[in-house]
Amino acid sequence: MRAVDIIARKRDGFELSKEEIDSFVQGFVRGEIPDYQVSAWAMAVVLRGMTARETYDLTMAMVASGETLDLSAIAPRAVDKHSTGGVGDKTTLVVEPAVAACGVPVAKMSGRGLGYSGGTLDKLESIPGIRVALSSDEFLRQLQTVGLVLCSQTANLAPADGKLYALRDVTATVPSPALIAASVMSKKIAGGARGIVLDVKVGSGAFMGTVAEAAALARRMVDIGRRAGRRVVALLSDMNQPLGRAVGNALEVREALDTLRGGGPPDFRRHCVTVGAHMLLLAGAARDLRGAARQVEAVLGDGRALAKFRALVEAQGGEARVVDEPERLPRAAWIETVGAPKRGYVSRCDARRIGEASVRLGAGRERKGDPIDHSVGVVVHAKVGDRVEAGEPLFTVHARERAAAVEAGEWLREAFGFSSRRVRPLPLFYRTLRS
Amino acid sequence: MRAVDIIARKRDGFELSKEEIDSFVQGFVRGEIPDYQVSAWAMAVVLRGMTARETYDLTMAMVASGETLDLSAIAPRAVDKHSTGGVGDKTTLVVEPAVAACGVPVAKMSGRGLGYSGGTLDKLESIPGIRVALSSDEFLRQLQTVGLVLCSQTANLAPADGKLYALRDVTATVPSPALIAASVMSKKIAGGARGIVLDVKVGSGAFMGTVAEAAALARRMVDIGRRAGRRVVALLSDMNQPLGRAVGNALEVREALDTLRGGGPPDFRRHCVTVGAHMLLLAGAARDLRGAARQVEAVLGDGRALAKFRALVEAQGGEARVVDEPERLPRAAWIETVGAPKRGYVSRCDARRIGEASVRLGAGRERKGDPIDHSVGVVVHAKVGDRVEAGEPLFTVHARERAAAVEAGEWLREAFGFSSRRVRPLPLFYRTLRS
Repeated sequence: MRAVDIIARKRDGFELSKEEIDSFVQGFVRGEIPDYQVSAWAMAVVLRGMTARETYDLTMAMVASGETLDLSAIAPRAVDKHSTGGVGDKTTLVVEPAVAACGVPVAKMSGRGLGYSGGTLDKLESIPGIRVALSSDEFLRQLQTVGLVLCSQTANLAPADGKLYALRDVTATVPSPALIAASVMSKKIAGGARGIVLDVKVGSGAFMGTVAEAAALARRMVDIGRRAGRRVVALLSDMNQPLGRAVGNALEVREALDTLRGGGPPDFRRHCVTVGAHMLLLAGAARDLRGAARQVEAVLGDGRALAKFRALVEAQGGEARVVDEPERLPRAAWIETVGAPKRGYVSRCDARRIGEASVRLGAGRERKGDPIDHSVGVVVHAKVGDRVEAGEPLFTVHARERAAAVEAGEWLREAFGFSSRRVRPLPLFYRTLRS
Repeated sequence: MRAVDIIARKRDGFELSKEEIDSFVQGFVRGEIPDYQVSAWAMAVVLRGMTARETYDLTMAMVASGETLDLSAIAPRAVDKHSTGGVGDKTTLVVEPAVAACGVPVAKMSGRGLGYSGGTLDKLESIPGIRVALSSDEFLRQLQTVGLVLCSQTANLAPADGKLYALRDVTATVPSPALIAASVMSKKIAGGARGIVLDVKVGSGAFMGTVAEAAALARRMVDIGRRAGRRVVALLSDMNQPLGRAVGNALEVREALDTLRGGGPPDFRRHCVTVGAHMLLLAGAARDLRGAARQVEAVLGDGRALAKFRALVEAQGGEARVVDEPERLPRAAWIETVGAPKRGYVSRCDARRIGEASVRLGAGRERKGDPIDHSVGVVVHAKVGDRVEAGEPLFTVHARERAAAVEAGEWLREAFGFSSRRVRPLPLFYRTLRS
C-alpha cells in the first residue's frame, strides 16, 4: 500500500479501508511516511471528510500507536471527562473532586492552555508546590489511595495523535470534525476509563461556533465511544460568554474553591452539578440524573468535595493551606475595576475577546512553551441578561502593572454590549447526546 | 503573511491575492516554507481550485523564481511547442526541423519520459553520440547558426516549478488544471518564445481523459499566455491510440526519419503538418493555415526538413550517418510479430496499455533516473477503424529476449478490441483554442 495512493483515494472522496488507515498511521509514527504526505492527506480529509467508520478506525489506529491503560483492576468504575476548551472553564477543578467525593474514582490527564483557551494544568499550578507530572506508578497509586488524580499525560498515550496534531496546527488542517473527534477520543480511550462525559463548548469562545457544528462533532465522538465499547455522554454547553466570572489561573482556582465550599457563581455551580451528575450516572453510582445531581450538591454543600480537593493537593505536593486560605494564591500587583458605560441590559459578554484580554495580560500563551503569569486575569461582574446601572462594576482587571491594565481595559470594553430592552440570559446547555 | 493563514484561505475557498501567492512561492523556493505546508496548500488547490487570475499569478511567481531567456535579439520570431505527453508522440522530431527548414528558428527544451508517457530526449539519444545537455552559450550559438536546438533544460528556468512538481508527484496533488497549466506555462514563458503551440492530448494514453477536461486545461494555458503577452494556440489531439505506429525510442526515431523523408504513417504525418502550420502562423511566416501547411508539406517532401534534422544531429555531436541509414539505430535482439486473433474492424488500440507494454519491455522508466533500452518497443500495424483478417500482422514486439516478448505480447493482445461492424477511425484533432 503506497502512501501516495491512499492520499489520492481520500482526495477523490473514497472511503478508506481499515487497512489503509492503519498502514498510514503506522507509517507516519514510524517515520516512514514523511510529514509532507501526511499534511496533504490531512487537507484531503478536511475537505472530503471521513465516514463514521473511518473516523473510528483512525481513532483506534492512534490508540494502537502507544500504551493503553487498564484501570479495570484498580478502579473499574473510573470515569473521565473532557472539555473541548473555553474561557473561564474551571469545571474540572470542581467536578472531579465532587465526583470522587461521591465514591467514584476519577483519573484525569489534562492539558495546558493555548491561545484564548485556558488549560486545567496551568490553573492547578497556581497552587504553590503542586506537581502535575506524575509517573505511571504514582498515578495508579494515587488513584487507589485518594481516588482522584489531576495530572499531565503520564503514559505514552496515542503518540500518533500528538504527532498529527503538531502537524495539523501548522498546515491549517485543524478544522475537521473527524480529525478533532479522533484526536480527543484516542486519548480518552487509551486512558482506560469506561465512561466518558464530553463537555462540547459552543459559541464565540469555543472552537465550534454554532450548535449544529458542535452537535456534529459530538455525534462523531459519541459514535466512536459506542464502537469502542465505552459509555459516552456529550453535553453541548454555552461558550458565548465565560463560564462563571473568573478568567485567569489563580482567579479561577479561587472561584473553584468558592464553589467547592458551597458558594461560587450560580451558573458555574449549576454547570458543575450537571456535568458531575452525568459522570455519576455513567459510573452506575446513581439511579437517575436527579438523584445524581443531589449527590453532587450534597458533597459541595457539606465540605466533602473540598476535602477531596485538599487531599489531591496534599498527595501531589501542593501547599494545602491554600485550599482554606485562598488569599495565599498569587495576587496581581495592579487591580482595577471598570464600571458599565451606561444603564441597560448586558446583551454581549464575548468569551473570545475576554479570553484574548487574559492572554494579553499574561495569563495565557500565544505559542506552546511560553511562560505564563498565574496571578493575572479578568473577573466579570455582569453577564448576558444582567441589568446594570451606569458606573456599576462591569469587570475587574488583574494586571502586572497599570499600563497593562489600561490596555486590557480598552480591549475588554469592546467585549460588552448593552440593550435598553430586557435580554434573555444565555442557556447553560443546548443539547445532550448519548452513546 | 503567515504561510498557515494562506493555506487556510485556500482551504476555505478564497481567492488568494498576488501578494499571497508571491510570498508563498518565494518562501518555498528559499526554503522558509517547509514541504509539509506546501503539500497541504497544493491539496487545497486541487480540491478548491484557482481562478484564472490566481493561476496567472502563480505562473509568473514561478517564472520569477529563476532565469528568463530573452531571444528577441537572436531569434525574435522563435516559436516553441509543448505536448502534454502521450504514447508514440515523436511529433517534435519532425515538426521542429520542418519549421526550422521554413526559416523560423526553433529552440526547444524537452524532457524525459516517465511512466507510460515517452520523452523527446530519450528518443533523440537513440542516435549514437548525440548530446542533449548544452550550455546556455551553446544553446544560443546553435539557435543562431542552425536555427534549431533540441536539448534538455539549459538555464535555471522556473526552479519553483521543478521543486513544486517533485512534491506534487509524491503527495497526490498532480491532478489540478491550475497547477498543471502553471507548471507548463512557467517553463515556456521563462524560455523566451513569443509564440507557443500547445499539443494537449486527450484519451486513454493522456493525462486528460476527456475533451472537456483537456479543453479546461487548454483554456487555462491559453489564458495565461494571453495575460503574459504571448501568442498561444492549443490543439486538442487524440491520444486514445498511439500517434503513428512506433512506440519506443529508436523505433520512433526511425518513424520520424521516414516522415522527414516524405513518408511515414499518414495520421502522424497529418498531425505534424497541422502542428507545424500553427507554429509558422504564430511566427508570422504564413498568411493562413492552408498556406502554412503547404510550406510544411513542401519541406517534408523535398528533403529540406531532413537536412535540417541532419544539421541538428551534427551540431549536437551525433552520428549523422544514422539520418540516412536508419538501420544503424539500436536494434532489439528479439523481434516478433503477432497476428490478429480474428477478422474484423479494430475498435480499440489502447494507447495507455501499449505505452505500459513498452515500459515493461524496457523502453521507459517507472521511476526518475531508471536506465532505459533505446532499442525495444512496439510497432502497431492496425489502428482504430482498420479492417484486419485473422492472422494478419497486428503488432510487432521488439524485445531484449524471447520471454520479454511473450510477456509483452500477452499484455498487448488486451490492448486491442475488434468489431464485426465497420468502426469509424478516431479523429486526429478535437478542438483548437487561441489566445
